[in-house]
Amino acid sequence: QGLIYKENGDPRGKLEGHVWDIDTKNLKEGEIFVKIGHASVNPADFNVIQGVYPAKPEKQKLPGIEEEVWIGGNEGFGVVEKLSENGDLNGLKRGDWVIFSKPQIGTWRSGLICNANDVIKIPNRKESQITPYMASTLQVNPATAYRMLHDFHQLDPKKDVIVQNAANSAVGQAVAQIASRKLKVASINFIRSNAYSEELQKAFDSYSKGDESCKAYLFSYEHLADRNSGLKERIKTILGDRQIKLGLNAVCGQANADMAKLMSTNSTLITYGAMSRQPLTVPAGLIIFQNMAIRGFMMNKWYAQNGLKEREELLKTLV
Amino acid sequence: QGLIYKENGDPRGKLEGHVWDIDTKNLKEGEIFVKIGHASVNPADFNVIQGVYPAKPEKQKLPGIEEEVWIGGNEGFGVVEKLSENGDLNGLKRGDWVIFSKPQIGTWRSGLICNANDVIKIPNRKESQITPYMASTLQVNPATAYRMLHDFHQLDPKKDVIVQNAANSAVGQAVAQIASRKLKVASINFIRSNAYSEELQKAFDSYSKGDESCKAYLFSYEHLADRNSGLKERIKTILGDRQIKLGLNAVCGQANADMAKLMSTNSTLITYGAMSRQPLTVPAGLIIFQNMAIRGFMMNKWYAQNGLKEREELLKTLV
Repeated sequence: QGLIYKENGDPRGKLEGHVWDIDTKNLKEGEIFVKIGHASVNPADFNVIQGVYPAKPEKQKLPGIEEEVWIGGNEGFGVVEKLSENGDLNGLKRGDWVIFSKPQIGTWRSGLICNANDVIKIPNRKESQITPYMASTLQVNPATAYRMLHDFHQLDPKKDVIVQNAANSAVGQAVAQIASRKLKVASINFIRSNAYSEELQKAFDSYSKGDESCKAYLFSYEHLADRNSGLKERIKTILGDRQIKLGLNAVCGQANADMAKLMSTNSTLITYGAMSRQPLTVPAGLIIFQNMAIRGFMMNKWYAQNGLKEREELLKTLV
Repeated sequence: QGLIYKENGDPRGKLEGHVWDIDTKNLKEGEIFVKIGHASVNPADFNVIQGVYPAKPEKQKLPGIEEEVWIGGNEGFGVVEKLSENGDLNGLKRGDWVIFSKPQIGTWRSGLICNANDVIKIPNRKESQITPYMASTLQVNPATAYRMLHDFHQLDPKKDVIVQNAANSAVGQAVAQIASRKLKVASINFIRSNAYSEELQKAFDSYSKGDESCKAYLFSYEHLADRNSGLKERIKTILGDRQIKLGLNAVCGQANADMAKLMSTNSTLITYGAMSRQPLTVPAGLIIFQNMAIRGFMMNKWYAQNGLKEREELLKTLV
């Protein structure tokens, strides 16, 4: 069974459940049958259903429906249940834990037949601390966080502090975690004031394990925009001799413009979302006089541009 | 004599004429006396007087004024009138044509004593087609145009078309000229509709010398913003198989956002001005999905980062 849709539009009106049989008896060479344990839901999944996302899934023919349909879901965790007898199966065996390397494969269903090349084997619970739930959300958000922290600026705990907005998002939390725990770099994290919660504060406090030098600080956009809040002075104190050379933006609009003003000369601002539905807005002086570089990031593109080996390496690092 | 100011502020209130004597009899080692023929006025000069520009000139003590003052002007053309007897004079001799390598040297005066290192010798009228007037405006605007066309994307006449706004500015005209005449690359140039004139149209038409493949097209922001004007289709026809990988922006705001939408995937948008006094505004999708890179350019920074040799080379190329 799975969640399918026949045409693009508002997911609330277009998505429907469907039950069908899968014939796992006659797997073709190189094919495997994967039972899906968890499938994640990302904001981009809704954009795909709406038809406004650049990545388009392929329509498929399913038993019990006349027309070809799309199956929702880009990301998920599964277990290999059955393998074809011949063909190159990438060293997979029954019971292996996998996630999907093929984007938009349609993970919102109980199981699927795919090519052995469409999955990436990950360590199972015995081999690592990962859970099926974590595995199902590994590929988009933590991967985005990891790549943005590594591909644009070589971070140095003694010289660098990072800033980001939408810090309560899955990517945002992963960014602050990876920065504090792995890179030992402090982060200044912005959220809407109504997104504040004690749990979020506790989570952010926990990342640095009491080490002030790599603390994940949490502030609100409203606090930053208010000239009398004293936040800019507070941030100067936090920075000390360190500078903000890397900023991560998933919001755009004014909140991003305010954040960008905290950044130093020769910095890089990465935009990977526009949650405010506003265009990217940056004071021109930062770009002209302070040589700020503005770049974009999209995980799907990275996966498309990098081979299976690079992808496996990234996912192993994340696990 | 020259134009001086004692404090920052509105140039109309702060700039004043002053007449003083220069003692050219006792030049120190390495010093030269340059008589200034032409000094140019750039928009940035006013920002310097206002005190809002990053480049700050040094105050000087002048005969006849108690306090130290600034002298206006960044760029100019001069002739070497007198040289100190000893010291390294960079091969300069009396009568040589020079422009100034030291930024904000204060060119709005009839003559000055400076170090031989503060000038760059240029070919004189006998050696090239350059006039004193052209020489006096060489260093900022044509140099900016040249570097922006060369430092970010390798232009290919068969594959590339460039776009720019503020095309009637000195930089804009130089961009269209260098693109058509030297690089043989077509350009799509935007101006305010009230900046349109027949002379400007004739000038832009003349750049390509009748060669359609490297024509400099002239359109208005208003024309581009109007969905029913048919301009987007017109531009598609102009492009054919070519793409816009390089855009030059001196305006920011909405006019720039509209222009950016014409650009292709993996393109670079360079911002070197903000004539609309708006922040840079770019639809986020261009950055995230189309991997547009946004960079800034400032000629002063380039001069500061490059040695005398690179600077001389650039100016010789421009001459």
